[in-house]
Order: sequence, then structure tokens, then C-alpha cells
Amino acid sequence: MSNMADHMGEFDLIARYFKRPAIHSVLGVGDDCALLQPAPGTQMAISSDMLVQGRHFFPDVDPQTLGHKALAVNLSDLAACGAKPLAFTLALALPSVDEAWLAAFSKGLFALADAHDCELIGGDTTQGPLNICITVFGEVPVVSGRSQALLRSGAQAGDDIYVSGTLGDARLALDVLYGKLLSVPPEVFGPARARLETPSPRVALGIALRGIASAAIDVSDGLLGDLGHILKASQVGAVINTSIAIKLVASHEYWMRSSGIFGIKNDQKTGLQTSLAHVLAGGDDYELLFTAPPTHRDAVLAAAHTSGTPVTRVGQIQSAPGLRLIDEHGAEVANTFRSFDHFSRP
Amino acid sequence: MSNMADHMGEFDLIARYFKRPAIHSVLGVGDDCALLQPAPGTQMAISSDMLVQGRHFFPDVDPQTLGHKALAVNLSDLAACGAKPLAFTLALALPSVDEAWLAAFSKGLFALADAHDCELIGGDTTQGPLNICITVFGEVPVVSGRSQALLRSGAQAGDDIYVSGTLGDARLALDVLYGKLLSVPPEVFGPARARLETPSPRVALGIALRGIASAAIDVSDGLLGDLGHILKASQVGAVINTSIAIKLVASHEYWMRSSGIFGIKNDQKTGLQTSLAHVLAGGDDYELLFTAPPTHRDAVLAAAHTSGTPVTRVGQIQSAPGLRLIDEHGAEVANTFRSFDHFSRP
Repeated sequence: MSNMADHMGEFDLIARYFKRPAIHSVLGVGDDCALLQPAPGTQMAISSDMLVQGRHFFPDVDPQTLGHKALAVNLSDLAACGAKPLAFTLALALPSVDEAWLAAFSKGLFALADAHDCELIGGDTTQGPLNICITVFGEVPVVSGRSQALLRSGAQAGDDIYVSGTLGDARLALDVLYGKLLSVPPEVFGPARARLETPSPRVALGIALRGIASAAIDVSDGLLGDLGHILKASQVGAVINTSIAIKLVASHEYWMRSSGIFGIKNDQKTGLQTSLAHVLAGGDDYELLFTAPPTHRDAVLAAAHTSGTPVTRVGQIQSAPGLRLIDEHGAEVANTFRSFDHFSRP
Repeated sequence: MSNMADHMGEFDLIARYFKRPAIHSVLGVGDDCALLQPAPGTQMAISSDMLVQGRHFFPDVDPQTLGHKALAVNLSDLAACGAKPLAFTLALALPSVDEAWLAAFSKGLFALADAHDCELIGGDTTQGPLNICITVFGEVPVVSGRSQALLRSGAQAGDDIYVSGTLGDARLALDVLYGKLLSVPPEVFGPARARLETPSPRVALGIALRGIASAAIDVSDGLLGDLGHILKASQVGAVINTSIAIKLVASHEYWMRSSGIFGIKNDQKTGLQTSLAHVLAGGDDYELLFTAPPTHRDAVLAAAHTSGTPVTRVGQIQSAPGLRLIDEHGAEVANTFRSFDHFSRP
């Protein structure tokens, strides 16, 4: 591949696949810096995520879905802050200049960027082990001197706990791809794999929840792990109803109907246990986990409706520290679920 | 090293080495996004650089100097725009959690950040081949509706061309470390290696040149290559006086006194040729290359003085396209120098 690198240098590469006219930015790709002029009365929300081959995606991943996912995980952070996407930078290390790969990657990347009116304003390309680092910029209004940003630190005892969409299916796909689960039928694996590879950041819901949610985070490391961040930042505890949570797994109905799916133990109970592990400690879901006072229940439903995003109430914030799991009868369920950590992933 | 990873997860790691109180930011490390509120009447200048082991630094590099350099190359982009540093994000892929490495890296990083009052506001850590991606944010005033940012596109025929500091020494050090040059004495190699490993971004000069320089860029890929970007963006040509340029190499005096330094050809002429190659196409210099109309010569010298940064006038912008090299007698010098490209580096 070094022949191709000789023919097409770093700068041509940037120009060919990533240079587009400026939209929100005063000055986009092609100078030492990009220039952004935030609207008066707004704050800029900023987040960075780095994706590494073998840790965040498989070596044989479709580059188009990878382009989507690399931006999606960043937009999900903006969603969790209630920020409106404006722009992003892309730094890319590539083992070699592979034009087919770049064409597909940029196609997936820009399709999602365009859907959110989010502009590529700069970045870097270099040779090295495949690594994708995106930094994303969003806008949050400041109203009467108060930032409308959703933070992790605002949850209060008595608040409801909500989750958007479905959880756990990305982890199901991952377990199948890692060979930890025996095969699941295509009608279950297909949607699960799509959740893993092309998550939909909940940007519209995040914006709709400004002034309604008391705290928010995106679920990237599993429900329990990410709820733990809210509890720590807000200095509160919580209780989660596992009989509601387990229904957040899109494939739950399938487990209910089936048995003999899993290689390890050939019974339905194991299937449901795995499902519960996936919903509570799955990772890679990119749904919003948020809290709101019970007086805002109608407002939460209205925000869900206007943003076209289903939400489910799964628990409650409590003043006593700690995270408790209960079943449908209110009885405590042992919490043996580990949160997802990019340093201890299998 | 996986034992250490088991003991110390991703989040502890971030908190321990990289979490500090917020200064410029409304909200710093530890939420889904950081929040920055730019001052009224300012634009935000943004730049991203990715550093990869084996391409931008050697595997055995001192992590403290690496922490310095990773931020320095980004601050240099702000300097080239005349932006005042405010904040940065850090995304870091590490093969393993090595606490000694992290302690040294963060020490070098924060020493430079503190010197420029530039705050770490967020980022990401993950396991993977060593990769450092920093995105930096600076502030540029807008005066009477005009941005004070220095761009690549403002050079005009007749403008003088200036370079700050010295050039070519980083490349000399690189050639020695790659074994392309035989040994040079410690008094030459030491300072050259320091230039390679701990460059000083010319932030104060960039700010002082607002309203004075017509165009600017930082020299990261070699004088000719980076001047080429200004010429292309400004649609002009240039002439560079090589007899002045060669004196920008700090080690030039040494080559003048010495011979027999190089393994390939044992004469002073080769030494001077190499020196000229280093100054024109060296790379990794992180000096400012800028243009200004001759009517601003006193203002340029005053900006150099107030910022404590030497500057040298090395050529002139011309309306005829192309980049010409001349010697001290005005005679044309053949341009056989290749610019520095991170995809074709040895």
C-alpha cells in the first residue's frame, strides 16, 4: 500500500474525501484552525471520543457503518447534554491510504453528519494503526443567566429514572460476534447488529428535555455503570425495577418464547439472566438515561412524543446512597453485574 | 500489564491524572460534554492533531517531553491564527495502564498547559496502540465586525515573508536518531533534540501579529511546504533568499566551521546542502511563517520585540505563481526539496 501513499499525500487525501464548504463555521477545513462563532447567549458543549480497532470495532467492520458510529457516539454525548450539534473535527490514523475504505467511511460519516446538520470543520490524518478521534461541538442556550445544559449532577431524591428506546441488543450482537453466545436467528441478530454498528444518537430527545430533565447521561457503558455516574455526581442513590428494565431488550420477547439458545446452559432461565445482564451492563447502547421530578411526567411524555423517541420509567432516585435492584414484587435482586469498561473488555 | 488494568479502570485513570478544577470552562472533565462560554465579540479557533508512535515520536521517547510536544503542536496551530489558548481535550489510547508513564506524560502536558493558561476540559482514554489526539480551543477577537484571526489566504504581492526563531534543527536531530547522519557532537545534537522533542509554540508572537501580518501558518512540514499552503490559499507566488534562510539553522555556524561530519560525502559542501535541505524542507519546527506588507516592517519588529521572539525576513510574495529560490547574488537555485508529509516519511 505504500505505493498508493506515494501517489497520494496527506493533503490531497484530506481535500478529496473530507473538504466541504463551510456552513456553521466562519472558516472550515484547510487553515491552521477552524473558526466558530457561537450565537450570542449560548454555551458551547464539547466532547471527544476515540475509537480503536479491536476495542470499539472489529477489523472487518464495514467502513461505512464505522463512519456512522464514530460520529454517532459523539453526537450521543451532545444529546446527553441537550446540545444542538454544530460541527466536529476528525483525526484519523490509517495504516495506508485505501481509497475504497475512505470513500465508504466518509459516506457513512457524512450521511449522519448531514442528518444532524453537523459540519466537519477540521482535523488531521496520519499513518498509524487505525484510530478515529472525533471532537464534536454543540450549542446550548443560556436562559436568564442559567445554562440549559443537562448535567449528571442534577438528580434529586424522588426523581423518576427514565431510559430512551431499547437497551442490551448491541451487547447481544457483540457476544455473538465474540463467540460467547451460540448462533441466534437472523431476525434477532440482524437488528441487534444494527444497534451495535449504527446506533442512533438521541439528539432530538436531549434537546426536548431541556428544562424538564434534572440529570442526563448517555448509556455507553451499561445502564448500571452510567446510572452510577449520575448517582455519584448528584450524591444520591437509586432503585431500578428489573422486571421493567428487562423488557427494554428488544429481543426479550424472543427469549421468552425460546429455550435452548445458549451453549452454556440449555434453559430459558439462563436466557433471561443473560438478557438482564445485557440490559443492565451491556454497553454500546447510546440511549439516554435521565431523571426528572414526578411533576414533570407529562412534560417528559410530551418531549418523548415531539422527538419521536419512546421512553420508559425504570426506577427512582433515593436519598440513601447505593444502587438497588428490585423485582416485580419489590423484592431485592442481587446486583452481580459489572459495568462496561474499555480497559477490561474481553 | 493487564493486572494493573484490572485494578484501575478507565474512570479512575482519568480522575487520577487528568481531572483538575475548571478555570475558563463552565464545566470541565467529568460530564458527557465540557461547556465553554466564549467571551462576547470573540470567535473560537479550533484545531486537532493526532500523534502516533513511530511516526511522530520514537517508542523510547521520554513521556514527559511527549506530553509537552502533544500539546505544543496544537498550541502552534492557535499561534498561527493569532488565537489566545483557552482549553483543550485529550483523547489517549494506551497499550496498558502504566502509572509511571501517565505521571510523566501528564507532568509534561500540564507544565506547558499552565504556561499558556490552557485548561484540559475533557477527553477519552482507551486501550490501543499508543495514540494521542488533542483538540485545542483558542479565542480570537472580532473588531468592528472583522475577525482578527491570521489566515493563510491573506498574502498579497509585495508582502515580505518572515520566519520566527530558527528552522531545521528538529530535522537534524531526527536524521541523527534515524541513523541517516553519523554522529554530531553533543553541543549540536542536544539543542537540536530539544527542538524536536519540546518545541515552543509561538503563541505570544501570533497574538502580537494580529492586525499586522497579512497571512500566517506554522512550520510543521517544512518552510517550502508550508509556504506553499499560503501561496495556494492566497493565489500568489514567492521568492525565498536561500543565503538568508540557511542562517536560520541554529547549527549553521557549526557546519561552517566543520567538515567530515557526514558519512556519505566527506566535505563541507554536503554539510551545507544538508543544512539547506533541513531549513527548507525539515519539518517539526513549529515556528511561525508569516507575511506582512513592507509598510508594516516596524510593526513586525515591535511585535517580535514585545513577544520576545526573533524574526527574520527571508523573501517576498510575488504575483507570478510558483515558488522560486535565489542565492545571495539573486541567481536562481534549483528547488529539489520535498516537503514533509506524514504519509511518506521514512
